[in-house]
Amino acid sequence: MIDRQARQPMVRATKAGGLAMKLHGFFRSSASYRVRIGLGLKGIKVDHTFYVLRKGEQRSESYLAMNPQGLVPSLELDDGSILTQSLAILDYLEETHPEPSFLPKDPVRRAKVRAFALAIACDLHPVQNLKVLFAVKGLTGSEQAMNDWARRVNQEGLEACEALLAGEKGPFCFGDRPTLADIVLVPQLANARRFGADLSKLPRLMQAETACLALPAFADAAPEKQPDAE
Amino acid sequence: MIDRQARQPMVRATKAGGLAMKLHGFFRSSASYRVRIGLGLKGIKVDHTFYVLRKGEQRSESYLAMNPQGLVPSLELDDGSILTQSLAILDYLEETHPEPSFLPKDPVRRAKVRAFALAIACDLHPVQNLKVLFAVKGLTGSEQAMNDWARRVNQEGLEACEALLAGEKGPFCFGDRPTLADIVLVPQLANARRFGADLSKLPRLMQAETACLALPAFADAAPEKQPDAE
Repeated sequence: MIDRQARQPMVRATKAGGLAMKLHGFFRSSASYRVRIGLGLKGIKVDHTFYVLRKGEQRSESYLAMNPQGLVPSLELDDGSILTQSLAILDYLEETHPEPSFLPKDPVRRAKVRAFALAIACDLHPVQNLKVLFAVKGLTGSEQAMNDWARRVNQEGLEACEALLAGEKGPFCFGDRPTLADIVLVPQLANARRFGADLSKLPRLMQAETACLALPAFADAAPEKQPDAE
Repeated sequence: MIDRQARQPMVRATKAGGLAMKLHGFFRSSASYRVRIGLGLKGIKVDHTFYVLRKGEQRSESYLAMNPQGLVPSLELDDGSILTQSLAILDYLEETHPEPSFLPKDPVRRAKVRAFALAIACDLHPVQNLKVLFAVKGLTGSEQAMNDWARRVNQEGLEACEALLAGEKGPFCFGDRPTLADIVLVPQLANARRFGADLSKLPRLMQAETACLALPAFADAAPEKQPDAE
């Protein structure tokens, strides 16, 4: 675990008021990446603590006491409260820091943005995370089967997402400013590329990604920009 | 597909104003079950159209035109708008029919309820749905491997959910009335039982389920109560 605040013990920020929030994450975790983007869009500065998932640091006793699922990210508030699950954290940020908003005002439009984000967060991302990939490898004994699985679920999932944007004007997923849909899309596209998915038939997703990466909130949240990047 | 409104064509409710909303679902789909509970808690009556997933009815051209992911449920509004993704639909219901609310008012408490729901909707449910189960069977050639997988991910996922409720008063997941957490939990427990998970070490989840099933909104939404139940 790397604590960017010198070598202070991890509980430091939980006891005293007025300190910054702290994001417990990992550079390559899509869910951490989503929250980094959301914080950037809201202009919120936080401290960061990074966990090396490959070494199981997110399964340590102290981390599990914060987050019983043993997943990153967790957002530690300045009163010591711990928030988990990236989409719940993003909703919290939206509710407590309404401007600039990353959801439309109209309830039907909000539902469409949320549905796009959930199509990735519930139907695509979970079936290609490390836990499932290692299980596929364990069941089949084949690295090839694992890689094929990851590429295929990304390909199919993103094609469905492209279809969800039919009739939606760009350059972002839903119009002229970034929403929750873009916050979830951009990290998933990074995964899809890593797994070798073919993104050439997904013009609207590519257009949205280009628009997003021109914004500091997205560019600065990229995995390779994080201090724990390997 | 079974249309409960006599044998009217499916587009009937999309063209004329003032008609009821229509839920496109399947009795055993957890995501449909969640929305049925949410509608019940809000006291909203809808028409129902049922799809037999085993026969691939949700992959028909007409259904894909509504829901490009080919998943149930979809909620068709009386103006013809189509909402997809159960959690986005539930947020829509909460925003458009605020009372009785199934989210607390305090942002941190809301985030905790949402995180519990997402721990099931993102980390548990997707890795035990039919698509993944069939893939496990296909990769291993073993029905036993598929059943073991389903039981194990339910067991582990629900144990993490039990831990998320440490310190939370009952009888519901988060206090004395049902929230989004209970709406997502109850359908998942039905899955877990079907897959043979051992729920005996999960007293808080069992307490919440008992409290929920005493309410008509939950009891009436149960799969076995639906007209398309087999």
